[in-house]
Amino acid sequence: MNTKFARRMGNVRPSTIREILKVTEQPDIISFAGGLPAPELFPVADILTATERVLRETGPSALQYGPTEGFAPLREAFAGEMRKRGVECSTEEILVTTGSQQSLDLVGKVFLDPGDCVLTESPTYLAAIQAFQAYEARFVAVPTDEYGLIPEALPELIERERPKFLYTIPNFQNPTGVTLTAERRRTLYSIAARYGLNVVEDDPYGTLRYAGTAIPAIKSLDTDGLVTYLSTVSKTIAPGLRTGWTVAPKEVRRYLTIAKQAADLHTSSLDQRIVHRYLSDFDSEGHIERIRQSYGERFSTMDACLTENLSSEFTWTHPEGGMFLWVTCPVGVDTNELMRKALERKVLFVPGRDFFPDASGLRFMRLNFSNASSEKIREGIGRLAEVCNAAIGEEKESAVRV
Amino acid sequence: MNTKFARRMGNVRPSTIREILKVTEQPDIISFAGGLPAPELFPVADILTATERVLRETGPSALQYGPTEGFAPLREAFAGEMRKRGVECSTEEILVTTGSQQSLDLVGKVFLDPGDCVLTESPTYLAAIQAFQAYEARFVAVPTDEYGLIPEALPELIERERPKFLYTIPNFQNPTGVTLTAERRRTLYSIAARYGLNVVEDDPYGTLRYAGTAIPAIKSLDTDGLVTYLSTVSKTIAPGLRTGWTVAPKEVRRYLTIAKQAADLHTSSLDQRIVHRYLSDFDSEGHIERIRQSYGERFSTMDACLTENLSSEFTWTHPEGGMFLWVTCPVGVDTNELMRKALERKVLFVPGRDFFPDASGLRFMRLNFSNASSEKIREGIGRLAEVCNAAIGEEKESAVRV
Repeated sequence: MNTKFARRMGNVRPSTIREILKVTEQPDIISFAGGLPAPELFPVADILTATERVLRETGPSALQYGPTEGFAPLREAFAGEMRKRGVECSTEEILVTTGSQQSLDLVGKVFLDPGDCVLTESPTYLAAIQAFQAYEARFVAVPTDEYGLIPEALPELIERERPKFLYTIPNFQNPTGVTLTAERRRTLYSIAARYGLNVVEDDPYGTLRYAGTAIPAIKSLDTDGLVTYLSTVSKTIAPGLRTGWTVAPKEVRRYLTIAKQAADLHTSSLDQRIVHRYLSDFDSEGHIERIRQSYGERFSTMDACLTENLSSEFTWTHPEGGMFLWVTCPVGVDTNELMRKALERKVLFVPGRDFFPDASGLRFMRLNFSNASSEKIREGIGRLAEVCNAAIGEEKESAVRV
Repeated sequence: MNTKFARRMGNVRPSTIREILKVTEQPDIISFAGGLPAPELFPVADILTATERVLRETGPSALQYGPTEGFAPLREAFAGEMRKRGVECSTEEILVTTGSQQSLDLVGKVFLDPGDCVLTESPTYLAAIQAFQAYEARFVAVPTDEYGLIPEALPELIERERPKFLYTIPNFQNPTGVTLTAERRRTLYSIAARYGLNVVEDDPYGTLRYAGTAIPAIKSLDTDGLVTYLSTVSKTIAPGLRTGWTVAPKEVRRYLTIAKQAADLHTSSLDQRIVHRYLSDFDSEGHIERIRQSYGERFSTMDACLTENLSSEFTWTHPEGGMFLWVTCPVGVDTNELMRKALERKVLFVPGRDFFPDASGLRFMRLNFSNASSEKIREGIGRLAEVCNAAIGEEKESAVRV
């Protein structure tokens, strides 16, 4: 096809993750690749009861068209959730979206003209890269360490690149698992306020904290109307319901709503009502607590297995929540090659490359610890470690040969 | 906001329809405005049973992430539906979308660069105008009469405007209710094939035929891979489930899938499985037959009431299916003003203006006959006719005064 979209996206390799997900349907594969929640923890029985109540009590409305902004009682529930997260928020400020991914697409559509700069952590969430690439974004990486992006680097980047916004995942970042410290959030916001920099704060994992203390959202500091905050029920209830939300400054919200109307009219009326009913009639807090405990155990298992099996030349992050950790391999290892060998051993991860806007980052891998059971984690990390350790053996041999 | 999207869409008045829909929640209003199916006909009990089966038998998968292309058994069901509509189609050719509206957005994203021409019927579906406007389309109207667009007008337009595609709603068009004849479909396709013109065939209403004989889709003629066909379950099962599909030539489908992945990853897993289960376990054909019968009766009631009450200077279309008819008022009537007076009498319609890309068409109105009961149709058309007849009275007086 002869359009800019086709030329731009046609060269993009299909997301490795989505390709990998197709393979994971084979039952003997152990996958640390997808960003999938643990399905055995989904509150299936409660969702079923919630659905029965919704359809028995309000069937015709639950199946009819609804407002673009979202089902009003659900917007109210999400506003309450925002207040729990330390953000003053009214019902009118909530825009329900078809998962957080739609928020990313709408943000791209509303903010970006071709060639506009987006500041990101590097690495960053690959589907955000894809969403913004569709609008011809130019990505500029903000230097990042184990405490998140380094805000002191922002002024120079802002002055030089004139970014349309900074995209950040401050809690248990995807892919690294790293959390931006409270102090850096304050510094980041004060710099944003000084320069009038828009911030897109993506927070799908914040409530999945199994260690340490919660840190208020950047949005909680937003006295100047600069922060567009995105979240979702994908990790706390179920991703299949495709229900997320944004809280944006008034003008941004207006355009996001116009864009959403053109994009899908509104999010599924039935799913919105199921989520609302589940949140109001069931112990969603207790449910999240069970997820936290389970993911904490799974992280500990994976961490211990990595320590036990992996050569000391590999290092990895130690997230206090979320679903991912990030492995740094010795210089010279190419994790794309590693993946092919891992696949032969029927264990999967995502090579780091896809998380870098410039497709650099060959020596990294993302491991998901939320989806597989502890037993499978032990087995899978055992297999993966053999592949990894062999790779640095080969690496040394080839160095010797050279 | 300082982006092209904001400048372009910020000036767009919020869709009159969506604004009107907010008013329709008042219980004493009789609305012929929205494109809403009759909610009392939704198969609520069957949807509930289908949902119970889905969640009891496959709960965790129904709540998990799924493939961008859609839930495979649902794609298979939609392929079967296409074959019923006379289109050879395999499961792989189906892309499930979050309602037909998402298909329109994805088509815009994939086909259009700023300034590209889209050929449309005039008037045409207003949310298609909005979706394509977001990608800076330039609209050119194809001359249209009571048998649909006039294909003989295409060659000159194609040569002069170099359109990226022709957008058409051949069955019971929104807003006019007009159906493109079989002969014109053949002529249209042969011209498209001669010029290599892409055709976007939007068919949400085709199965809602209550009179006359079904006409094969333009897609059924598509030996050259030029037609992208869109449909939905919004009018045959329920719009709140936001489940539609497209059948597109291979290359187009590839880009639509990439675009959909960035737009919302995939359509709700739960809704897709509910639709699939409903289609496989229940009498969906019998259900559509009940909708057809009811809408046919409602059209007849509205047609009879218009004949009885409206001055003979008004004319209207006589669709053989779908949900809308289109009233042409005498020259000089402005239906935007008429709407304000109708609102005082608590009856609603959509003024014609929004359906013309250039916001012309002041003397038209769209009436929906699917949503209100026959009793309400009689009452509402009575009120509306008084407002209409008074308007041409005033019109004559003001003509005399001039």
